[in-house]
Amino acid sequence: MSKINQISSYLKQHKIDAAFITTPDNVFYVSGFRSNPHERLLGVVVFQDAEPLMICPKMEVPDAQAAGWSFDVVGHQDTDNPWQLLKEAIEKKSTISRLAIEKSHMTVERLEALQELFPQATFDRLDDQLNAMRVVKDEQELEILRQAAAYADYAIEVGVSEIAEGKTELEILTAIELALKKKGISHMSFDTMVLSGPKTASPHGKPGDRKIQKGDFVLFDLGVIYKGYCSDITRTVSFGEPTEAQKEVYETVRKAEQDAVDAVKPGVRAMDLDKIARDVITEAGYGEYFTHRLGHGLGISVHEFPSVTGNNEMELIEGMVFTIEPGIYDPNITGVRIEDDVVVTKDGVEVLTKYPKELVIIPTA
Amino acid sequence: MSKINQISSYLKQHKIDAAFITTPDNVFYVSGFRSNPHERLLGVVVFQDAEPLMICPKMEVPDAQAAGWSFDVVGHQDTDNPWQLLKEAIEKKSTISRLAIEKSHMTVERLEALQELFPQATFDRLDDQLNAMRVVKDEQELEILRQAAAYADYAIEVGVSEIAEGKTELEILTAIELALKKKGISHMSFDTMVLSGPKTASPHGKPGDRKIQKGDFVLFDLGVIYKGYCSDITRTVSFGEPTEAQKEVYETVRKAEQDAVDAVKPGVRAMDLDKIARDVITEAGYGEYFTHRLGHGLGISVHEFPSVTGNNEMELIEGMVFTIEPGIYDPNITGVRIEDDVVVTKDGVEVLTKYPKELVIIPTA
Repeated sequence: MSKINQISSYLKQHKIDAAFITTPDNVFYVSGFRSNPHERLLGVVVFQDAEPLMICPKMEVPDAQAAGWSFDVVGHQDTDNPWQLLKEAIEKKSTISRLAIEKSHMTVERLEALQELFPQATFDRLDDQLNAMRVVKDEQELEILRQAAAYADYAIEVGVSEIAEGKTELEILTAIELALKKKGISHMSFDTMVLSGPKTASPHGKPGDRKIQKGDFVLFDLGVIYKGYCSDITRTVSFGEPTEAQKEVYETVRKAEQDAVDAVKPGVRAMDLDKIARDVITEAGYGEYFTHRLGHGLGISVHEFPSVTGNNEMELIEGMVFTIEPGIYDPNITGVRIEDDVVVTKDGVEVLTKYPKELVIIPTA
Repeated sequence: MSKINQISSYLKQHKIDAAFITTPDNVFYVSGFRSNPHERLLGVVVFQDAEPLMICPKMEVPDAQAAGWSFDVVGHQDTDNPWQLLKEAIEKKSTISRLAIEKSHMTVERLEALQELFPQATFDRLDDQLNAMRVVKDEQELEILRQAAAYADYAIEVGVSEIAEGKTELEILTAIELALKKKGISHMSFDTMVLSGPKTASPHGKPGDRKIQKGDFVLFDLGVIYKGYCSDITRTVSFGEPTEAQKEVYETVRKAEQDAVDAVKPGVRAMDLDKIARDVITEAGYGEYFTHRLGHGLGISVHEFPSVTGNNEMELIEGMVFTIEPGIYDPNITGVRIEDDVVVTKDGVEVLTKYPKELVIIPTA
C-alpha cells in the first residue's frame, strides 16, 4: 500500500476529511519530492477518497513532477496568495470540517492562516501516525539505506588509509569528504568527527589541528546523505601497537556492541538492547564511562524514532532501522566507540555498515 | 538600551504581560547564548518590569551562564515536565493574560502547551518587533560582522591562490575550507560555491570534478559563520587572458555593483538600489541575464531582513547590513557575479568585504 493510501485509510478510520503535510521531510516521504522552500508554502494534501494534491512554488512544479509526483500540483508565484489557491484546490475535492496537521512542526502563523480559510474546521494531530509509518522502512528505502551505509564504510576506509604521523585531524577529515564528493556525495548527515589521542575520550569533541602521534587511537564518526536518507557509522582504530589497557577498552566496547546487535529481533524492547550493551561495559568496570544512550532511529533524519534508551519500552518490529553505538570514554586510557546501522528483519537483524570491527592496528613506519 | 530592555518597553507600550522567545536565533540575539536543543525546551521570557528568565536543558545551564546570561535560569531534565517549571517560574514574576510569541516559528504543539498553562491568556505576535530590532545592528554586532567579512576575504584569497590548470572545483573548495578550519572557522554560512568555465553561468550550480582550463572564469560564492554571525561574498576571476566579451560582461557587473554600493545611505529605498544596478546591466544589453534580486539582509541568518528587491519600498536606515550582488549569466560568454556585504552608515555606506573588484587575471603558466 502506498504511503498516500496508508494516510487515506487513517483519515477514513478517524473520520478526518484531509491531511495537510508540510514538513519537508514528510513531503519527501509521501511524494518523493525533496524541497526546502523556507518561508514559501509547500505541502501535500491527502484526502479520504479523492486523489491527493501538492502546492509548491511555481518554479518547482517541474521538479516535483520529475521526482515522480503524478497528481495535481498547484504552483504559486510570489505575487499570488498561496492560501487562497490552496483553499480553491481543496474545495474541489472535499469539504473540510476536520483537518489533520503536523502539530509538532506547523507554525502558529500557518495554523491561523488555515483557521481563516476553514473557520468551521477543527484540527487534528497527524504527527504520531507519520512517525509510526516512517519508523518501518520498506524495501525501496532499505535499498537506499544499504547504499548510504556502503558510502559510510568507504569513508572509514579512506580515513583509515589517510592516518599518518604528523597529519592533523582536519587534514584527514578533509580527505574523507573530498573522496566522497568525487563519488557524488556532497552532504554529510552531520559534522564529520575525526578525533585522536586523548580527544577520543570526549564524545562531542571537535576535530582540530592536533597531529596524529604513535600510540593514538583515532575515532571516526560520520555518515552521508544518499537519495535523501542518512547513514551513521563510528569506528576506532589504533595508530601503532595498543597498550593492554587500550586493548581491553576496545574489546569491551566491541563485545557490548556485538551482543546488542546479535540480540536484535522483533519483540525485543529498545531498552533491552541498551541494557545488554550497558551490562557488558558495567561488568568490565567501565560503566561510569558509557555516558549516552545506545542508539537512535535512522532514515530521512539522522536522529528519528525509535530512541534506543534504557527507558524506551517500545518493542522492535520488522523494518525498523537504528544505530547501535556503545562507547567508553576513559580519560586515563582512551575513548572507543563502535557504531553500526541495523535493520530489524523478520527473525533477526541485518547489519548495514560492514567495515570490520576487529581492532585495526596501523603500522607506524 | 539592551535588547531585553527594548522588548520590555515594547511590552509596556502594547500592554502585553510577557514575551516568550524560543527561536534559537532570537534566543541568541537577546541572551548571547547559542544553543540548538532540538525538541527540548529552550526559551527566554521577558517581562514589563521584572527581570527576564531563561529555561533550558539542565546540562546547558553552565553554558548559558558562561555566555553571559546573568539572570535566572530554569534547568530541566528529561524526567521533568519543563512546561510546569516554566509556569511556576513565570508566575513568580507576573500574571499572564497576554503573552507575545513568535508566531512564524512557534509550533502548534507548543502553543497548545502554553494554552494549557495559561487557559485565560491570549497570544500576541512578537515576530515583527524582533525583525525590526534585528534589522539594525549595533556596534558590537558590526564588529563581529567586520571580522566575519575579513575571513570571507581571506577565503577568496586562498581560493584564487589555489587556481591552477587541471585542478578541480572540488579540490579548490576543499583547500579553502581547510585553510579556514585552521583559523578556527568550522562552519560556512552556506554550501561554498566554486564554479568554472561554462558553469559560472548557472547561478545555482554545484561544484564538481570539472578541471580548470585556460580561459575559464572562476566564480567563488562563500561566507563564514563567526561568533554566530554570517558573511557572504562573491568574486569572479579570470584564469588566463580574458576575451573582449568576457571583459565587457565583467566590467558591466562591476559598474552595476559599484553604482549600487555608492548609492547606499539612509532614506534610499531597497528597490532603488535594485533599480540602479539593474539599469546598468539592462542598458548594456544583458538585462535578461540578471535573473535574481540584488541582495538580502545579513546577520545571525545568512538571509534575513531586508530583502533588496525591485518591489521592496522599505527605506534604508543606519545600521542595516545587507548584500549587494548583481550578476550576468550569459551562457554564450560567461557568468559573473560580484557581491559585497555593506552597512548603512549615518550618511553613506561602509563596505565590509574588501577583496579587490578589479578583474584579477591569473597567469596560466
